[in-house]
Amino acid sequence: MLRLALIGFGNVGQGLVNLLISRAGLLKQQYGFDASVIAVATLRRGSLYHADGLDLDALLKASQLGAFRHYPHTAGLTRDWSPQDIITRSNADVVIELTYTDVTTGQPATDHVRAAFESGKHVVTANKGPVALHFHELNALAARKGLFFGYEATVMGGTPNMRLARLGLAGCVISGFSGIVNSTTNYILTEMERGHDYEIVLAQAQALGFAEADPTGDVEGYDALAKLVIVVNTIMGVPLRLDAVERQGITHLTAADVTDALRDGYRWKLVARAQRHGDGVTASVCPERLPLSDPLASVMGVTNAITYETDIIGPTTIVGAGAGGIPTGFAVLGDLLELHRGTR
Amino acid sequence: MLRLALIGFGNVGQGLVNLLISRAGLLKQQYGFDASVIAVATLRRGSLYHADGLDLDALLKASQLGAFRHYPHTAGLTRDWSPQDIITRSNADVVIELTYTDVTTGQPATDHVRAAFESGKHVVTANKGPVALHFHELNALAARKGLFFGYEATVMGGTPNMRLARLGLAGCVISGFSGIVNSTTNYILTEMERGHDYEIVLAQAQALGFAEADPTGDVEGYDALAKLVIVVNTIMGVPLRLDAVERQGITHLTAADVTDALRDGYRWKLVARAQRHGDGVTASVCPERLPLSDPLASVMGVTNAITYETDIIGPTTIVGAGAGGIPTGFAVLGDLLELHRGTR
Repeated sequence: MLRLALIGFGNVGQGLVNLLISRAGLLKQQYGFDASVIAVATLRRGSLYHADGLDLDALLKASQLGAFRHYPHTAGLTRDWSPQDIITRSNADVVIELTYTDVTTGQPATDHVRAAFESGKHVVTANKGPVALHFHELNALAARKGLFFGYEATVMGGTPNMRLARLGLAGCVISGFSGIVNSTTNYILTEMERGHDYEIVLAQAQALGFAEADPTGDVEGYDALAKLVIVVNTIMGVPLRLDAVERQGITHLTAADVTDALRDGYRWKLVARAQRHGDGVTASVCPERLPLSDPLASVMGVTNAITYETDIIGPTTIVGAGAGGIPTGFAVLGDLLELHRGTR
Repeated sequence: MLRLALIGFGNVGQGLVNLLISRAGLLKQQYGFDASVIAVATLRRGSLYHADGLDLDALLKASQLGAFRHYPHTAGLTRDWSPQDIITRSNADVVIELTYTDVTTGQPATDHVRAAFESGKHVVTANKGPVALHFHELNALAARKGLFFGYEATVMGGTPNMRLARLGLAGCVISGFSGIVNSTTNYILTEMERGHDYEIVLAQAQALGFAEADPTGDVEGYDALAKLVIVVNTIMGVPLRLDAVERQGITHLTAADVTDALRDGYRWKLVARAQRHGDGVTASVCPERLPLSDPLASVMGVTNAITYETDIIGPTTIVGAGAGGIPTGFAVLGDLLELHRGTR
């Protein structure tokens, strides 16, 4: 029985808990996997800790009602622990870091991850901040303590792209990769093929929930940049900083650019690209005019894809959903299953 | 140190040995993995067994010279053991079954696999016969003995498609899949887009080594059928027999069929397809006229692909090389690394 502490409880955390409820039987039967959520900490809804585990249905219900005070009181329940208390003082085996991503400071997530490892707890995170900014330090700390560090959920949502690279391509040298790793921009570029200009499609994407009110992080390429840096650091093993990467967004592209390219047999895509050179890499996040024969050119809408270049089997591409609370919760669950395989 | 016995030593076995030589340092450093080949058995070149391991360079050289009598003699070397002797009497940890595929009888491979498990040895195979015909019996035997059964190399050559499904999609229910899993037919259909008829392209493919002298197994869909049945049995967990699957080859397609479809926005592909229905599946291997927007429609030449349909993250597609001695040897190596991860 793996005891989980969730720091942050947004779409991904709720997606994970939904899966733990709906899949409990399958996970137990197929993998001998069993987990309880012993703590949840949030900024606005409060926090809950019970060493014997929380009732997951009651937890989701209280969260939907907007505050954990709606969670029924039981003997042994603690309601006033901070994230730091939960990370250092609880009986959790795994801290699941799901606070809001900040790729400028990486906080508070980086402090949470560090404290968890220092307290002897495994970490799984969907937060790009700590992995994009401090992967090598945190990974070395985990290794020194003999602990698991899972971060599959940071890139391509639920699609197991880094698990494919780590477990499926083990033994290959990965010389580089190219990918479509931001769903919002790929949706916008896909819709612009109908001849609508950027601003019109953006407004439509915002109305549908595919773009945020402030779309800068997506449309200027910052989200793709963080994901690129994560894959370079974790999979290629090369230290690369966010500010060392050329970055350009899609806001300057017009409907005419998109439809002209298509007429000539090309598609504009926001491509994250990295190539090993000696000990380093060259990397970029830029709109590229891809020939339609490129596997990435046929990746449409909110779908994502990464092509890993390997020295033994050539290019290997994985294509799948790039976002969503339940899919991304599935990536967290995948990390927990990998931890479970390694420790049972 | 994992001791390997290779039964059969064609392209895949030689590919594996090449990788064991060229990757020894990387495998040791990154994964703590270390292997020796203690035995090799062939039909025409003879057999070699040394409990302390064979010299891999000398092994490749003797094989290239056409007979293992060219392998230098050393104290303790045995040259007259049969495959059965090696499987039952050697000190191998893993039997690697690489004899010629026969999907009618599954022999002699199935007897080899069974004997290996009975002797307490793990098995990795690239042979479709035992997996397509007897997976559930052999897998149950392995489980009862606490042994590893690796078969990644049987489908899509080196591309880790079943490893993706087993490790990356763990926790999902896979409701079905569709794939392009035969390189020869996909190469022929790709080349027919230039307006050449089937017979002309087949002759060209035979000249290039992409098609065999007797192409029946590929062009009538039997190879794709065996791979389909393997994925249904191993990944979907549903018992399915070869003779329960609708099968049609590509020999009736004309250049006009192919170019007409393309003009209308479609591509003919030989698609292996399975869909779960209750406790069973419906499955087929047939040419299908796919819209160009289908991810499988852009898979060209000798490239292969499988799209797994999952209940949590929707469709997940993997695209990569489908054949070749060194890539398929890499799939065998991947199984050995997975065994090593689980047993260290």
